[in-house]
Amino acid sequence: MVTLVPARQISAEIREKSPLVGCITNSVVTNYTANLLLAVGAAPAMVDIVGEAGLFAGVANATLINLGTPTPEQRQAALEAAPSAHEAGRTWVLDPVAVGLLPVRTALAKELLAHWPTVIRGNASEIIALAGEGAGGRGVDSADSVDAAILAAQALSDAYGSIVAISGEVDAIVQGDTLVRVAGGSALLTKVTGGRLRPRRTYWRCSLHGRRPPLWRGCRPRHVRCGLGKRCCSLHRSGHFWRVLP
Amino acid sequence: MVTLVPARQISAEIREKSPLVGCITNSVVTNYTANLLLAVGAAPAMVDIVGEAGLFAGVANATLINLGTPTPEQRQAALEAAPSAHEAGRTWVLDPVAVGLLPVRTALAKELLAHWPTVIRGNASEIIALAGEGAGGRGVDSADSVDAAILAAQALSDAYGSIVAISGEVDAIVQGDTLVRVAGGSALLTKVTGGRLRPRRTYWRCSLHGRRPPLWRGCRPRHVRCGLGKRCCSLHRSGHFWRVLP
Amino acid sequence: MVTLVPARQISAEIREKSPLVGCITNSVVTNYTANLLLAVGAAPAMVDIVGEAGLFAGVANATLINLGTPTPEQRQAALEAAPSAHEAGRTWVLDPVAVGLLPVRTALAKELLAHWPTVIRGNASEIIALAGEGAGGRGVDSADSVDAAILAAQALSDAYGSIVAISGEVDAIVQGDTLVRVAGGSALLTKVTGGRLRPRRTYWRCSLHGRRPPLWRGCRPRHVRCGLGKRCCSLHRSGHFWRVLP
Repeated sequence: MVTLVPARQISAEIREKSPLVGCITNSVVTNYTANLLLAVGAAPAMVDIVGEAGLFAGVANATLINLGTPTPEQRQAALEAAPSAHEAGRTWVLDPVAVGLLPVRTALAKELLAHWPTVIRGNASEIIALAGEGAGGRGVDSADSVDAAILAAQALSDAYGSIVAISGEVDAIVQGDTLVRVAGGSALLTKVTGGRLRPRRTYWRCSLHGRRPPLWRGCRPRHVRCGLGKRCCSLHRSGHFWRVLP
Repeated sequence: MVTLVPARQISAEIREKSPLVGCITNSVVTNYTANLLLAVGAAPAMVDIVGEAGLFAGVANATLINLGTPTPEQRQAALEAAPSAHEAGRTWVLDPVAVGLLPVRTALAKELLAHWPTVIRGNASEIIALAGEGAGGRGVDSADSVDAAILAAQALSDAYGSIVAISGEVDAIVQGDTLVRVAGGSALLTKVTGGRLRPRRTYWRCSLHGRRPPLWRGCRPRHVRCGLGKRCCSLHRSGHFWRVLP
Repeated sequence: MVTLVPARQISAEIREKSPLVGCITNSVVTNYTANLLLAVGAAPAMVDIVGEAGLFAGVANATLINLGTPTPEQRQAALEAAPSAHEAGRTWVLDPVAVGLLPVRTALAKELLAHWPTVIRGNASEIIALAGEGAGGRGVDSADSVDAAILAAQALSDAYGSIVAISGEVDAIVQGDTLVRVAGGSALLTKVTGGRLRPRRTYWRCSLHGRRPPLWRGCRPRHVRCGLGKRCCSLHRSGHFWRVLP
């Protein structure tokens, strides 16, 4: 069942519950991720060391594992956090940055799949590579179209029970047989760091609902950088989020 | 002896001496910490690797050890820097982020205490946990009131000779029998990254006076992010710092 | 042969080719470096782990190795990336931050020289220390004048075939017998993090030309922070870059 939910309602829920979100993320967007989570009312904590990440993933409402600049310590921490989150019935999100192109993170991402990510999000090339096809794009730039990745997303969703979000000019979100398309993406968003943080609202929302969150996606937050200007605002003014109940 | 010193005088002293400040700090606020130190006239250097941190702490005017995202390398570097700073009679500051809640940093913070931190700063939960009581708060959010942490701060100050600053809506700063309260904190400051950087001016000031600096705290710097707006400015306009001579 | 090339022409070339730039850089400027590269039209990727950095340096158009906060993993990654870039005939840039002052990075920088950096950039103290003289400055602050470092730069250029850029109030760029001086630097640029990113345009440009790029330097980009104001703008309005063909 797909419904449109006012952004205001989603925001109110997040602010009320202030979900604790553990982050194992890359060095480019660390600060921005923390501030964006704070801005929507969540409580972020960058817990990315061995001996703490697993423990924290078991108590946090949600955990983000972003493979943008995966240090050896963060890779071990991710392998601690993912099973801990899964076993505790907590939401965890896999963001397989540049998977397919670069070997260390590709092997890690495939190892992490075994721990049942609640949400997988990536661009088309990353999703295709994660599903075992293709050779990845060029870092944050996808070499493939969103449409070309939908079958790969469905394969991942079927195999691991994950909600799979593919970002692009028109995003696709896949869960089993459900497919939602969300317009409003832009190639411009690959021209600032953190442009891909748009879909992060997925994480916050998921963190409110445990293991099987309603599937949803929002228009981009207010925080998108200047230069994107009017287009961004008008999208935001639409003020609604898709919500798909599984 | 407690005196109010004009902010202008403090600023002029820092600008004149341009103290070198070594930082072993967390990945969220690295850039902001460097820019804030530059803005007040200090010379920051993020020297946080083994083989350099100890050497640098022995020559820098002050060293900051912040345990927000302590990588294994930074933990070793901290254990190099703290004794080096202490032996050279230099100021060093311990910021025990999320101590109590997370085990690796908790053990490290307690090990670092043996090297006589000049200043310890934390929220109430962190100070209580560092003193051996309580279970810590929820990351940057304190689960305890400032008042509830004053006895713990005094115990830490007595045991290690440190100035202990507890941040909150009304901060408390403790050194032996001296207690200073500083109004002007705000829960809003936990809603941006680096909100806790307000008290960092402590470090800069301390760096001018070697091992036993006059105790002081300032109103928050101009740099506090937008959104805090007028309140921030009016506090700044008060233009005075507390200084407590030990 | 030295020519002045309109900035507009340089910018258009970069935007057209969108060079892929791998970065192994320090924790203070990671985000800013990525955004600045994006802003001029390049495609940055922070690939700084062992097992990926070498591979990526062999396919990227250019690689930056900045030694500001060199973790053990990044040091190994640098030793993978530099020979890989050299063997593949790709541009790579060495930024020996605080070399001379701090031993671990000093040893690493000297080891990296053996892999023929296309460009070396640093302040006067760093260039002097890298050439085997002097004891380095005080982090980003140079203790020496640009003039005092020109012979050291020529020695480095002769020994390793590198273009050597010395930043300061009036920059000097040296390649063999060619010397270009570029006014428009300012001590103010040492008062913000990333002030030294001005010369990074060197990298982007080099990345368009493979191993032996035309030598050039630009006026500072639009991105220099507020507070530097008018001076910055008027320099930018000059709108020309020096280009020296080797």
